Amino acid sequence: MSQFLTQLGDAATAVEAFLAECLAEQQANGTPPRLAEALRHAVLAGGKRFRPFLVFESAKLFGVTREAALPAAAALECIHCYSLVHDDLPAMDNDELRRGRPTVWKAYDEWTAILVGDALQAFAFELISEPGRHEDAEVRAGLTHTLAVASGAIGMVGGQMLDLDAGRLPEQPAATIADIMRLQSMKTGCLITAACEMGAILGRATASDKAALKTYGEHLGSAFQISDDLLDAEGTAADVGKATGKDAAAGKATLIGLLGIPEAREHLDRSIDAATAALHAFGTKAEPLIEAARHMGRRGS
Amino acid sequence: MSQFLTQLGDAATAVEAFLAECLAEQQANGTPPRLAEALRHAVLAGGKRFRPFLVFESAKLFGVTREAALPAAAALECIHCYSLVHDDLPAMDNDELRRGRPTVWKAYDEWTAILVGDALQAFAFELISEPGRHEDAEVRAGLTHTLAVASGAIGMVGGQMLDLDAGRLPEQPAATIADIMRLQSMKTGCLITAACEMGAILGRATASDKAALKTYGEHLGSAFQISDDLLDAEGTAADVGKATGKDAAAGKATLIGLLGIPEAREHLDRSIDAATAALHAFGTKAEPLIEAARHMGRRGS
Repeated sequence: MSQFLTQLGDAATAVEAFLAECLAEQQANGTPPRLAEALRHAVLAGGKRFRPFLVFESAKLFGVTREAALPAAAALECIHCYSLVHDDLPAMDNDELRRGRPTVWKAYDEWTAILVGDALQAFAFELISEPGRHEDAEVRAGLTHTLAVASGAIGMVGGQMLDLDAGRLPEQPAATIADIMRLQSMKTGCLITAACEMGAILGRATASDKAALKTYGEHLGSAFQISDDLLDAEGTAADVGKATGKDAAAGKATLIGLLGIPEAREHLDRSIDAATAALHAFGTKAEPLIEAARHMGRRGS
Repeated sequence: MSQFLTQLGDAATAVEAFLAECLAEQQANGTPPRLAEALRHAVLAGGKRFRPFLVFESAKLFGVTREAALPAAAALECIHCYSLVHDDLPAMDNDELRRGRPTVWKAYDEWTAILVGDALQAFAFELISEPGRHEDAEVRAGLTHTLAVASGAIGMVGGQMLDLDAGRLPEQPAATIADIMRLQSMKTGCLITAACEMGAILGRATASDKAALKTYGEHLGSAFQISDDLLDAEGTAADVGKATGKDAAAGKATLIGLLGIPEAREHLDRSIDAATAALHAFGTKAEPLIEAARHMGRRGS
């Protein structure tokens, strides 16, 4: 296994243990039992935990320990998990399975899935702002603000809205490459960029270091999304009788559809190069983040 | 009109103007137009704005101006509005009308209503933590934490979960008075208490002043809920052919059903007395909050 995948696995183990502990603590404080069970189903269901890894590694550039970065990393993962729970709902993507297990609305019911997502979003902001978690109120308020903007109407939720509208509203103008890039940078990129910025906030980074991590995060988010699209397109092209991917099948314009696979690969390579270049000033300390970007060029899952 | 109702109306005007401005600013920063329109539909649809009034009046006890309390008051109202948008969904209460206008899912569609709620929750935390809004990071982080706890799994969302489960899951044990009080204090009381605590946080109140406002908020929340239940029971009893209220019709145990109207009225009076007693130390400055509590004994709507 590559060093990146080992580090990613370590980060996942740490953040899962922390989340399990925080959810148990919350239940002891009065979460109704059925809601508590559904929250565990939503949060402790595996996953790459790529965003927490980015928080840890960005913070480490400034000497912040993994332990000190845990609440912010966990909060970001709660936002990611809530978005999946709501995306899976019948009114959204109508998915019954996620990572081989029933989705929350399927395992429980729709009202529980809506409330699990709502509770997880609140929990993220609770974790990130809790007085005992970070001594410095400036850090807590800064993390809150960055996460709120990245996950809201001009970030993740706005991107999800554009995505659903594109597939369902009649008489949408044909999407251009710029449209798709904007949608993807909102839906997926904003939270990945926020992960890197949150590491800088935890580390009380200078403005220029914070800007460098933001640039890295933006290109990494772009690489992440293109590599996802390539996996979707190339994976399904190999299946007989299913020549197009899920997005294309849903009638949505995709970057691969507009660019073709070779040009999309070039785009991916350029994004990886730009992401790694942004970290130049950090020297060899940035190796784990550079490896994360390079991994996007050789993803198998 | 009573002085309380005049002050409530003033608070509503101020918070609505502020929310309209903030939503316009967010749209200028990139909210997709259809989402922006649905957000306005959800937020700028009237309503008593009782929670913002409580933030303003609690903060004023410590010399905090209405202008300085606006972001916290608006954030609390965004949380309240998001909960209504999600509660109205077909999978929750399935309501098509709210204040005489179509609910968000009816005016748009279900996915938009889910995303409007999600975006509004994020917007609340964005407003409350924005660096320019309050100079003091300790205040911003404190407000965030109080609001997150009150609106999450051990607060508003947890109460909503208990309420839906009580009406729908088979073989629920019969609810006791204590069960109903707990459900209502979570579902409605927590946010009302948070409004009063947020005023204290804005005013950098002493621990004892903050505790007094919390006690006031808890009894006020209880009075608010009982007066709501009485309106429901007494209002509908007057209608021929509709002898019971909405909750009773839904097969849910209600406080009125278990206590009877006279005992519920006594309970309401005791809550109002306890709420006003908690403010004793503030003297005449607390008159607007005392009037708010007394109003619960003579609500007509």
